[in-house]
Amino acid sequence: MSKPLVGIIMGSQSDLGVMKEAAEVMEELGVPYELTVVSAHRTPLRMVEYASEARKRGLKVIIAGAGGAAHLPGMVASLTSLPVIGVPVKSSNSIDGWDSVLSILQMPGGVPVATVALNGAKNAGILAAQILGCNDATLAQALDRYKSELKEKVESAAKNMDLKGWKASLK
Amino acid sequence: MSKPLVGIIMGSQSDLGVMKEAAEVMEELGVPYELTVVSAHRTPLRMVEYASEARKRGLKVIIAGAGGAAHLPGMVASLTSLPVIGVPVKSSNSIDGWDSVLSILQMPGGVPVATVALNGAKNAGILAAQILGCNDATLAQALDRYKSELKEKVESAAKNMDLKGWKASLK
Amino acid sequence: MSKPLVGIIMGSQSDLGVMKEAAEVMEELGVPYELTVVSAHRTPLRMVEYASEARKRGLKVIIAGAGGAAHLPGMVASLTSLPVIGVPVKSSNSIDGWDSVLSILQMPGGVPVATVALNGAKNAGILAAQILGCNDATLAQALDRYKSELKEKVESAAKNMDLKGWKASLK
Amino acid sequence: MSKPLVGIIMGSQSDLGVMKEAAEVMEELGVPYELTVVSAHRTPLRMVEYASEARKRGLKVIIAGAGGAAHLPGMVASLTSLPVIGVPVKSSNSIDGWDSVLSILQMPGGVPVATVALNGAKNAGILAAQILGCNDATLAQALDRYKSELKEKVESAAKNMDLKGWKASLK
Amino acid sequence: MSKPLVGIIMGSQSDLGVMKEAAEVMEELGVPYELTVVSAHRTPLRMVEYASEARKRGLKVIIAGAGGAAHLPGMVASLTSLPVIGVPVKSSNSIDGWDSVLSILQMPGGVPVATVALNGAKNAGILAAQILGCNDATLAQALDRYKSELKEKVESAAKNMDLKGWKASLK
Amino acid sequence: MSKPLVGIIMGSQSDLGVMKEAAEVMEELGVPYELTVVSAHRTPLRMVEYASEARKRGLKVIIAGAGGAAHLPGMVASLTSLPVIGVPVKSSNSIDGWDSVLSILQMPGGVPVATVALNGAKNAGILAAQILGCNDATLAQALDRYKSELKEKVESAAKNMDLKGWKASLK
Amino acid sequence: MSKPLVGIIMGSQSDLGVMKEAAEVMEELGVPYELTVVSAHRTPLRMVEYASEARKRGLKVIIAGAGGAAHLPGMVASLTSLPVIGVPVKSSNSIDGWDSVLSILQMPGGVPVATVALNGAKNAGILAAQILGCNDATLAQALDRYKSELKEKVESAAKNMDLKGWKASLK
Amino acid sequence: MSKPLVGIIMGSQSDLGVMKEAAEVMEELGVPYELTVVSAHRTPLRMVEYASEARKRGLKVIIAGAGGAAHLPGMVASLTSLPVIGVPVKSSNSIDGWDSVLSILQMPGGVPVATVALNGAKNAGILAAQILGCNDATLAQALDRYKSELKEKVESAAKNMDLKGWKASLK
Repeated sequence: MSKPLVGIIMGSQSDLGVMKEAAEVMEELGVPYELTVVSAHRTPLRMVEYASEARKRGLKVIIAGAGGAAHLPGMVASLTSLPVIGVPVKSSNSIDGWDSVLSILQMPGGVPVATVALNGAKNAGILAAQILGCNDATLAQALDRYKSELKEKVESAAKNMDLKGWKASLK
Repeated sequence: MSKPLVGIIMGSQSDLGVMKEAAEVMEELGVPYELTVVSAHRTPLRMVEYASEARKRGLKVIIAGAGGAAHLPGMVASLTSLPVIGVPVKSSNSIDGWDSVLSILQMPGGVPVATVALNGAKNAGILAAQILGCNDATLAQALDRYKSELKEKVESAAKNMDLKGWKASLK
Repeated sequence: MSKPLVGIIMGSQSDLGVMKEAAEVMEELGVPYELTVVSAHRTPLRMVEYASEARKRGLKVIIAGAGGAAHLPGMVASLTSLPVIGVPVKSSNSIDGWDSVLSILQMPGGVPVATVALNGAKNAGILAAQILGCNDATLAQALDRYKSELKEKVESAAKNMDLKGWKASLK
Repeated sequence: MSKPLVGIIMGSQSDLGVMKEAAEVMEELGVPYELTVVSAHRTPLRMVEYASEARKRGLKVIIAGAGGAAHLPGMVASLTSLPVIGVPVKSSNSIDGWDSVLSILQMPGGVPVATVALNGAKNAGILAAQILGCNDATLAQALDRYKSELKEKVESAAKNMDLKGWKASLK
Repeated sequence: MSKPLVGIIMGSQSDLGVMKEAAEVMEELGVPYELTVVSAHRTPLRMVEYASEARKRGLKVIIAGAGGAAHLPGMVASLTSLPVIGVPVKSSNSIDGWDSVLSILQMPGGVPVATVALNGAKNAGILAAQILGCNDATLAQALDRYKSELKEKVESAAKNMDLKGWKASLK
Repeated sequence: MSKPLVGIIMGSQSDLGVMKEAAEVMEELGVPYELTVVSAHRTPLRMVEYASEARKRGLKVIIAGAGGAAHLPGMVASLTSLPVIGVPVKSSNSIDGWDSVLSILQMPGGVPVATVALNGAKNAGILAAQILGCNDATLAQALDRYKSELKEKVESAAKNMDLKGWKASLK
Repeated sequence: MSKPLVGIIMGSQSDLGVMKEAAEVMEELGVPYELTVVSAHRTPLRMVEYASEARKRGLKVIIAGAGGAAHLPGMVASLTSLPVIGVPVKSSNSIDGWDSVLSILQMPGGVPVATVALNGAKNAGILAAQILGCNDATLAQALDRYKSELKEKVESAAKNMDLKGWKASLK
Repeated sequence: MSKPLVGIIMGSQSDLGVMKEAAEVMEELGVPYELTVVSAHRTPLRMVEYASEARKRGLKVIIAGAGGAAHLPGMVASLTSLPVIGVPVKSSNSIDGWDSVLSILQMPGGVPVATVALNGAKNAGILAAQILGCNDATLAQALDRYKSELKEKVESAAKNMDLKGWKASLK
């Protein structure tokens, strides 16, 4: 496999069920990536090392997911000037996801995190590809194709409803 | 001025007080940009045109700010595969900013918006630069310098407190 | 069937389980309607076309349902001067429905959306009928009958409790 | 003046500062209206009478605004089958407007209230006109003109920024 | 049975699962009561009649439970000067109960509702008894006994844990 | 002055600006009352004594106001079987009043607090009078008169608007 | 067993499922503790006694857990100058845990409660040990070991993913 | 001055207006302390160093204050096994303080932060003293005296009201 361009990290292995969707997008679009567990609170020095060396190692984007008091995305962003995408994860003891969302989104001036929706790891993957697509015409085309497919699925669902009546679409 | 790489748009001229911080970052870092008003709700066709032609016109990143039921960032993202950064603006009739935040952040799978903090236009500018910096070593260095300056300001504030005692820092 | 007066649209086929209640009210009250899928984020141009031509095609009211960052109702309202009724749908990744509610309700001055309760598609249907009933005496009478039936159901439940004691009503 | 088609009511005279915007829209669009104070909690029987006789008196739409535990719109809707538009008012003791919004929006199945944004009386006026415009071509045209004016204001602001630079637009 | 002193009403028969706890307290403490369904939104005139005649009929306290945009307790309070206890019910389409709580609690000055916790019908019953106990020494004593029993249950649980170790109390 | 029937207490003298409205209602309706500061957190034993002896001292209702983590009303209710009315106060460090509201309202089964609106001390006073009015025909009549006055104020405001036009009522 | 240094109390036996995690930490780290039920609302005098005598009895830290209008931690803190750790418990009738969190966290100036996360009894145990570890080198070392184990678990999960690929970690 | 036992740190000099209250408590109670600025996001390595060496340098408690996505307290707690007290600061761009509160409070299992109220720096100071007071009888007595003074202030306010009537206390 080529050298990874996107690093996908998460605070806990239990976030993998959500975060795998980012990896799946990478595979679907043919973007080389790596995936591992880096915990801000349990392995802070590992996090410092991971973030500090990311650019040197050739990464171009980091996707970081975490739940509750989710410090991983923001702390990684404090340690690298690569773009960092944050995925708020609705973990088991989260207060309905609000804690994850707010502790990733509300970064102070100077240190942005590109936050996506609660559990939005798929969108984190697409956003990473869009960032790489700024300078990769092939990838940009793949993203446009992806957009077309989204459109076609909706149009075909609509067509189907027209033909058979919406009651048939209820299952 | 060179051809703009970053397009900064906002739903209303009244958002300019917040959104100008993105433009100021662009100027500080020497990134060519353009800035205009595009309203999702009052000029929907202008929005469709702006977003659909953005890539062709050479833009690489779009920064979109809006308040209340803030549809501009998400709708632009639906019309281009460029990365779109969304800035929730705390406008006058907003419910404490929650409406702006949630209607930008909570995009469905397939159509990401890179959301920054409430009124976080400065961070939107930095994030745009980080995205361009993936393939622009000079810009990446400028971003690292920016990071160093943030650090030095804190360190100098700390040094000052040490020397003069914290009570002197209260003003 | 007569030419539809009410257009029921939704952002995703997965909203049909909620939105069908609007259609059922239309059938119960004998209002000609159409129902289809139009996604603001996946089929933005289809949405522009649908909304722009709605009045010409003879529609008088549009009911639009969507979840999460729910932009469909507001965007349709930006493209037509027909009354648009918005139904916030509590979709699977919604933050308890708050995102759907706020991104439909909090429209800026000039572009209203008539918002109903979370998952309130039935009420959207009734509201559409009330709007048509402004100039349709037969429909207005049907709505008054509907109101009477609501009343009678409560009164009969109350009577039943009186007769058999409330413990019997617990099942 | 012609017989009023729209009734604008509010729970307290202190809501007039917000609710007057609905009346101003009526005047701008030439829709005959009436405006008065009807309190659900202080004049419940007046409310019953107002709502019960509204249709007979020739009203076609009712706009009701209230703050806090805002029961007026929903109770009026329980007493008439005319379309009722609810305006949540952010009154002085409101909890940031959430109480007004939720007690108007979350009506049970069978009794809809067409809710607009917090303090959104202007949009309530436009929505009332849209409802009447379903069967009034002149009014529909006036609404389309209103839409065009909204668009032109944005376009002219954008043009101005282009000409003079955005910094000139900051004040 | 003696003439009821407490009237327990609810907006819908589906609230009975919650509201029955108020009735059970009445039976346990020997307070004569009545229970029925009165819907603010589906039977507004029945509600007006119930509330207006409550004092004449000998009721001394009204307990009213409702969910969502819960207008029943406040509207009853607007129609009688008897003390009205409101029970916010977490109904199926409620937004986590916030709508029920706020539309009962946030009454305007002049028209109080004595609000208890979400689904707190048991406490509504006890509160009604406390109100009657202001002038009924026997009932006041029964309430003191009830308080003692609460205390004894806790003390016995504590004693049990001491004796057998807390692990035995986990089941 | 006669022996007080209502005890008005508050957690801090700084709550007096809000809580005085309860006292003013007592004076207006001629209900003998007392008012003092009792802090759950700073004078817990004073609170125990106050609550434990309230009934013996002849009090019939206690009104307790507090802000932030507002424990006073609930703790007083745990120590007496008199009805306790809780007033959530929006104090300076409160999180928009939510802390005060929830820590008063959400009492566990067995220990009710009759909660009124945020800063709703006036309604606490009226509720206390309604409770006493259960067995005091004169007071009940005074409450009915109070209700009539509320009604008349609204009706007179409405009449005034009719006569002079609503624009004159704007100031 | 040695004299307990940490007292673990909870408002209801039903909190034991959450609160046992504090006890388990105590056992794991070899800290002598006691555990019992003390209800602020059902056994207020037992609570006064427990808190008032805690220091005399040799306790050094109190961990108090409660749900809903959770007054136990704050009231205990009002009665002792020992450090009190509060655990908000998400009980069955809680409004998503917000009531528990806010009524423990938002204590007024002068009377702190060291609040941990919703259902965070394990962290309460660790915090109690950290407090004791200020003057107990052995315990401090045990806490450092605990920290190392947390780190090692993450590192081993990461190593495992590297070896077998992340898909194997999904189970 | 003696070697500091308590380290007070904050994310930004702009937090000093809030955080100074912790220092003032230290001075009032005679606890040696230090105070400086350490930013998790702008000086992450300084933070790592500060936290990692805190115990060796003789600190026994760390008080950390921060606003918005407040990562400082939790990250410090990840790097030391000293007790860490977190102060959520309501900074200018905070969403009403919710972001600060949740990103400090909701720490994952294993890494506690002792969270105090929003802007509760005074309580952080008292809590630090209580922690030190576990093994310092003089400090424990000072804290008991502090508690007595709180009590006396309330009692004297109450006495004053009794003497002069509450109206005199209104200003």
